[in-house]
Amino acid sequence: MRQVSITDIAQAAGVSPSTVSRALQDHPRISLERRKAIQALAREMGYRPSQVARSLVTGHTRTLGVAVTDVTDPFVAEVMKGAEAASRKADYGLLFAMSNRDPSQEVAAAQILLDHQVDGMVVISSRANARYNEMLSGRGPKHGSQIPLVLVNNAQPGPNVFSVRMDNRDGACQAVTYLRELGHRRIAFVAGPEGGCSSRERLEGYRQGMAENGLRPDLKLIVTGGGLLEDGPRALRTLLDLADPPTAVLCYNDLAAIGLLAAAAAAGLHIPDDLSVIGYDNIPLSRFTIPPLTTVDQPKETLGRLAVMMCICALNGEPVKDAVLTGELIVRGSTNLHSKEKGPT
Amino acid sequence: MRQVSITDIAQAAGVSPSTVSRALQDHPRISLERRKAIQALAREMGYRPSQVARSLVTGHTRTLGVAVTDVTDPFVAEVMKGAEAASRKADYGLLFAMSNRDPSQEVAAAQILLDHQVDGMVVISSRANARYNEMLSGRGPKHGSQIPLVLVNNAQPGPNVFSVRMDNRDGACQAVTYLRELGHRRIAFVAGPEGGCSSRERLEGYRQGMAENGLRPDLKLIVTGGGLLEDGPRALRTLLDLADPPTAVLCYNDLAAIGLLAAAAAAGLHIPDDLSVIGYDNIPLSRFTIPPLTTVDQPKETLGRLAVMMCICALNGEPVKDAVLTGELIVRGSTNLHSKEKGPT
Repeated sequence: MRQVSITDIAQAAGVSPSTVSRALQDHPRISLERRKAIQALAREMGYRPSQVARSLVTGHTRTLGVAVTDVTDPFVAEVMKGAEAASRKADYGLLFAMSNRDPSQEVAAAQILLDHQVDGMVVISSRANARYNEMLSGRGPKHGSQIPLVLVNNAQPGPNVFSVRMDNRDGACQAVTYLRELGHRRIAFVAGPEGGCSSRERLEGYRQGMAENGLRPDLKLIVTGGGLLEDGPRALRTLLDLADPPTAVLCYNDLAAIGLLAAAAAAGLHIPDDLSVIGYDNIPLSRFTIPPLTTVDQPKETLGRLAVMMCICALNGEPVKDAVLTGELIVRGSTNLHSKEKGPT
Repeated sequence: MRQVSITDIAQAAGVSPSTVSRALQDHPRISLERRKAIQALAREMGYRPSQVARSLVTGHTRTLGVAVTDVTDPFVAEVMKGAEAASRKADYGLLFAMSNRDPSQEVAAAQILLDHQVDGMVVISSRANARYNEMLSGRGPKHGSQIPLVLVNNAQPGPNVFSVRMDNRDGACQAVTYLRELGHRRIAFVAGPEGGCSSRERLEGYRQGMAENGLRPDLKLIVTGGGLLEDGPRALRTLLDLADPPTAVLCYNDLAAIGLLAAAAAAGLHIPDDLSVIGYDNIPLSRFTIPPLTTVDQPKETLGRLAVMMCICALNGEPVKDAVLTGELIVRGSTNLHSKEKGPT
């Protein structure tokens, strides 16, 4: 299938290429009837306009950029899946760049997207980056305006900057309240990457949940992490070394929880009898851990779809409102009554 | 940071915009000395050429397209990570589209990349699609030529079509030979998606391994699958229902193996004593399953990097050779001596 050109259509229609070109751009110099006829012929011949040519006419490339921390993080991959579906449906190309969880690479990742004149940008990262605003300003269609930027699970002020995120405080708080209902009092928290918005909010939600349930804070129960598989085993070691170890643990995300489950099995701990474990994200894998993981669901594909739709709305000058979604606790086999609270077996 | 324009540079240099434009295009009409001075000034001012403008001059968009089956498959995500790193390093933008494991969406995914005039395309899918050639032909820089297409874990004939893939037969054969060495004779295979090149080759490798080790084929030991988490539990049920169930199983990929481990735990089976399990891909998660998963490693990021580098070489008219890499068996806790072969404990 050779690509159909303007010249091909001109030959078939018996008119000049410039007439075809004008007709396809809906130029009023060509009569409406003729425009419709040429457009119909072009469709019939399978003509697809050159984006490069279209870009020069419209000033838009009809591409969006998506900058992510790490596509190998299952949460990020699910959000990207939603973003791709929405942009393809709207006939936008999606340029992809990643920072490899390295804050110093964030600007380079955004830059390659901007170098390709994306019409708008979606950033899937819970780390704010104040430089985005300066990078994006002056790139909008009007002089001095800024192209739209939609942040997923993050927010920052700026003209044409929007945010779609989860109520992370509520999610973490729900998880702690549920553990308290099971009889747990020594509840640990494995934190997420430093400087992350979701990390901070989930920690705040954990603290709020502890306070609301009358549990006094114990700083030793909060251990650092980075949202990686490897963080689970490290966190478990730290917690087991405590004089008074926890009976339950809420992890920043499912990956850390999965790493913790593996380390617990290797240490001969029985989950959930010896330790109840809750993750966060509800990645597809969390149904297939041993035991299946209790977790806070995030509508991942929806986050990605919404981000792209908000970006396109902003591009079209339609009003856009930030969105905050609420997560839902999914109870599976990794949580149990605190053993001391159990009835006789 | 407002974007620096040609006009800004012209003003700063005290020359006309067209002189700046020519100098930046290394046009011989401008003296070499003057060209260098203007180029240095442009660099200093942080000028970044418009890709749209550059496209019109060069006929290239300096973007590559990557079409994948499913970015939420950890194998695919790792390959994409390598592809992104290589394309960013070469200053190419990477357009991304996915077919959602739906063969009927493959053409639409490729089409949106072609609509954005990618200079070359990488397809991460083990399903061949004969339509790619017709879609790509006539899009090359020379009349009637085809833009480069690099297939990851697949191959198909065509002008300017290249392939980087694993020796899947060897990998599966290695796994079977290892299981035979452990004393297993009833070795099952959970197949991959139908129509996939990797599926076919791994099945052939399994058959070859059985034959080479003097094990007679039993069709009941080969069960269908699709390379998804959900395939593991289904496959395990089928195998446990056999009159003479296997003592070991090789899965098409780690995802199916992880699903199978979860189902085995739920069924009260002890892995590896009751059943040895081997996956394929060595995704990061396979180190954190319970027990850790024996698997055939694929150098996933390398596959992605190589694919992009081959695509860029082909674009530059450099000679490109197909690459076949060999996988390595990684032994972990999910495989064990066949219990009847064990000494007294």
